[in-house]
Amino acid sequence: MAKPEETAIQPTRNDNYPEWYQEVIKAADMAEASPVRGCMVIKPWGYALWENISRALDDMFKKTGVKNAYFPLFIPISFLEKEARHVEGFAKECAVVTHHRLETGENGRLVPAGPLAEPLIVRPTSETIIGDSFSRWIQSYRDLPVLINQWANVVRWEMRTRIFLRTSEFLWQEGHTAHATREEAEQRTRMMLDIYRNFAETYMAMPVITGEKTETERFPGAETTTCIEAMMQDRKALQAGTSHFLGQNFAHASDIRFQSAAETEEYAWTTSWGVSTRLIGGLIMTHGDDNGVILPPRIASAHGVLLPIVRKPEETEAVMAYTREIADRLGQKVYHGQPLRFEVDDRPIGGTRNWEWIKKGIPLRIEIGPRDMASNSVFVARRDQDHRKKFSMEKDRFIDGIGDLLDEIQNTLFQRALDFRNTHTRKIDDKREFDDFFTPKNQERPEIHGGFALSHWCGNADCEAQIKERLTVTIRCIPFDAKPEPGICVACGNKSSRRAVFAKAY
Amino acid sequence: MAKPEETAIQPTRNDNYPEWYQEVIKAADMAEASPVRGCMVIKPWGYALWENISRALDDMFKKTGVKNAYFPLFIPISFLEKEARHVEGFAKECAVVTHHRLETGENGRLVPAGPLAEPLIVRPTSETIIGDSFSRWIQSYRDLPVLINQWANVVRWEMRTRIFLRTSEFLWQEGHTAHATREEAEQRTRMMLDIYRNFAETYMAMPVITGEKTETERFPGAETTTCIEAMMQDRKALQAGTSHFLGQNFAHASDIRFQSAAETEEYAWTTSWGVSTRLIGGLIMTHGDDNGVILPPRIASAHGVLLPIVRKPEETEAVMAYTREIADRLGQKVYHGQPLRFEVDDRPIGGTRNWEWIKKGIPLRIEIGPRDMASNSVFVARRDQDHRKKFSMEKDRFIDGIGDLLDEIQNTLFQRALDFRNTHTRKIDDKREFDDFFTPKNQERPEIHGGFALSHWCGNADCEAQIKERLTVTIRCIPFDAKPEPGICVACGNKSSRRAVFAKAY
Repeated sequence: MAKPEETAIQPTRNDNYPEWYQEVIKAADMAEASPVRGCMVIKPWGYALWENISRALDDMFKKTGVKNAYFPLFIPISFLEKEARHVEGFAKECAVVTHHRLETGENGRLVPAGPLAEPLIVRPTSETIIGDSFSRWIQSYRDLPVLINQWANVVRWEMRTRIFLRTSEFLWQEGHTAHATREEAEQRTRMMLDIYRNFAETYMAMPVITGEKTETERFPGAETTTCIEAMMQDRKALQAGTSHFLGQNFAHASDIRFQSAAETEEYAWTTSWGVSTRLIGGLIMTHGDDNGVILPPRIASAHGVLLPIVRKPEETEAVMAYTREIADRLGQKVYHGQPLRFEVDDRPIGGTRNWEWIKKGIPLRIEIGPRDMASNSVFVARRDQDHRKKFSMEKDRFIDGIGDLLDEIQNTLFQRALDFRNTHTRKIDDKREFDDFFTPKNQERPEIHGGFALSHWCGNADCEAQIKERLTVTIRCIPFDAKPEPGICVACGNKSSRRAVFAKAY
Repeated sequence: MAKPEETAIQPTRNDNYPEWYQEVIKAADMAEASPVRGCMVIKPWGYALWENISRALDDMFKKTGVKNAYFPLFIPISFLEKEARHVEGFAKECAVVTHHRLETGENGRLVPAGPLAEPLIVRPTSETIIGDSFSRWIQSYRDLPVLINQWANVVRWEMRTRIFLRTSEFLWQEGHTAHATREEAEQRTRMMLDIYRNFAETYMAMPVITGEKTETERFPGAETTTCIEAMMQDRKALQAGTSHFLGQNFAHASDIRFQSAAETEEYAWTTSWGVSTRLIGGLIMTHGDDNGVILPPRIASAHGVLLPIVRKPEETEAVMAYTREIADRLGQKVYHGQPLRFEVDDRPIGGTRNWEWIKKGIPLRIEIGPRDMASNSVFVARRDQDHRKKFSMEKDRFIDGIGDLLDEIQNTLFQRALDFRNTHTRKIDDKREFDDFFTPKNQERPEIHGGFALSHWCGNADCEAQIKERLTVTIRCIPFDAKPEPGICVACGNKSSRRAVFAKAY
């Protein structure tokens, strides 16, 4: 089958990474822009990813005692006002509901009517509305901990949107927990971040750095924000998940008090943590190549496709019977606890069939023709390898070993991403080297720069601001595995005791 | 264990059904009102039901080729205006977003700012926004059928709300399909209704009547609306799910055109179908008794609870070991394809423990004490039976036969509900008898009336309106199984060819 062009996706990653990203999503039929500003339509091939992500995470949450619940979409303005930094963080970009019906106006068009006494905002996050419930649910230390999660849509009226990465409406999960002690809440904050890390690396094959945000980058109202940060193929960082220790801030704001075992009245310690459909953007940018998306098997919308190769009509019946037998046997198999998902695409050969699946990033393409039948085998193409490289496998060996084959693809993707990150991460102690690392060499491709710099930072927010101003580089986190190490701040030259991860970021 | 009062729920169903309904939800800890007018908080015990409902339905949908997707929460007003009856149906009660940020006003409080050029409404249903995508996705007959579902929240600004049954925000699924022919779309409409019927009866143990709505009760913009209708224990009807054949109305409104195989340009034929968290209200009102909720095992938040009975501290270890052994063995079992869910409640006896589980409606309460250990047995209480009736079962027989025991409870609940409906359904041909059937005998309990009347209707909307006006009784549907049968309209006395189901309704 002829390759229609040099690569299936134009422009390539090297030519124009941001445009490549848009094109690859379109080519994989994962999502599209909607007529509503900044909102996306998630199409079935993209939504299946979210379903798989949700199911895997949901199981992990539940194993730690978390239960799902659902809270109102709308938040009274007065709730938002309860936590000062929270307001500042979210009031600038929220959808405000002011009326509860429409009526026909003078020009014959519908206009808002029925003004609300108190306007409502569409939740940008739910600390305050969930805090209100917690204040009723929690009376005694016996009611603690409360471990709640919700799967929901949220709205943040972003000015510059990009599909999956930053949309006005997005889907996410937000966990909210309340505890009797600081220690327990801090432990929970870290436990959930570890789940995110484990999920990102094991399921999404996306290596992440875990660490703590600086004060500047903290969630509005949190005492500490921890995060997982991944490197995309343009070497920029993507914050892929956050877990916040909220101290007693929101307990004070929402009046979440309880009687302790010692019969004193205490404020609860709370946490919140979330990941969103942004993960799908991260997946695409971590693994995709110039022929399209590459889906890691553990989370893929489908694991593979069977492509019957029929050149003469009289071969149809036999090839289809052989294909169906293989499909049936695969359909009974389980891969990491989930049913194996194989598609059968019996459209004629010679069209766009093969390339459509390549662009969609399906892990395995299995060609099945008369020659394969004759040798009782199948012809296998792996999406993690060059699309021209195909190999024959004895049928039973293929079916029996399908789990190992998929795991091999999964591991290859993870290792490739890890190697990429390692290659583009550098310890930098010199200010000029630091600046050079982040300065684009080619003005036509301003996105190309060094990657992650592990550099010393004195802890001063001014140094952070100065670097951001000069290079649009931010501290992604102080990694948990950063060992205490004396050095000097890459901005001001003052003493520093450990390195931070500096990067350009989405 | 002493029964704290005559019944756990006050008032009883007979005393005051609407209040019983509110109390039973509170007692089962399933949901609560929120500070946002008309919106509810679904608590874990209630949300688990929705998770089980969603999973079962989702599997059924997918088996028919339906795929999930996600569309924007917001709908531009101009989209709503595209279908005249649709506007009329939804414009009177919708949340309108007019601004995209908040700023501090003169009084120091936050006020809406950043007015939108075109206000948006929060989706009350998504025909128009999904139609917009369909118009892009569908070009040729080869693109058809398109079979899409979304799990989402929707908002209808209801003036009188009741938890689960009618809330301003609720959770639902909405299926939307497009087809090349009228026949195929009509078939799909009926196929999805059959799935709802099957689900309601098999999983929820809730018998339903399937049929077609009259023009008056039709979905705004549909050509026909079909429904499942259930009888609650106050003999009122609950519309539990609807499936609409939309003809080409929304295809015209959203410009969904395709080139046919004969190369003519055609408008697509579309359907939509949905069930919501209202189902949970139906479940409660179908099965609940004066001691609380009763959950059908196939959909229960948990299947049972193990209650260790420890009266002397020295017995604790042995009883807990025996309990854990049983819990572990149960935890490895599968019930109708889903893992068996058993809770262990090791709080001390003598408190509210037993009654809490009764009120929550858990199908099985399993007491485990030294005597049971000695006889290698467990002491079983079924929620579908009197709470004092308990029986001993040999441990292995209990564990091995758990599926049959749960099925027996499931069948009992279904049969009981079916008997109830049959008892309170009457063929009525006489107008006076009809009026009497629906007239409360006791002014203090205006909700008590006859139930479902199967009566003749001539097809005239005036007769329908007159009956509604006089008795607040509506035609729930023309049942599919109504055989042609000559008769006279119960309102006007004109000729009629078949019976409709008349009832008071939620």
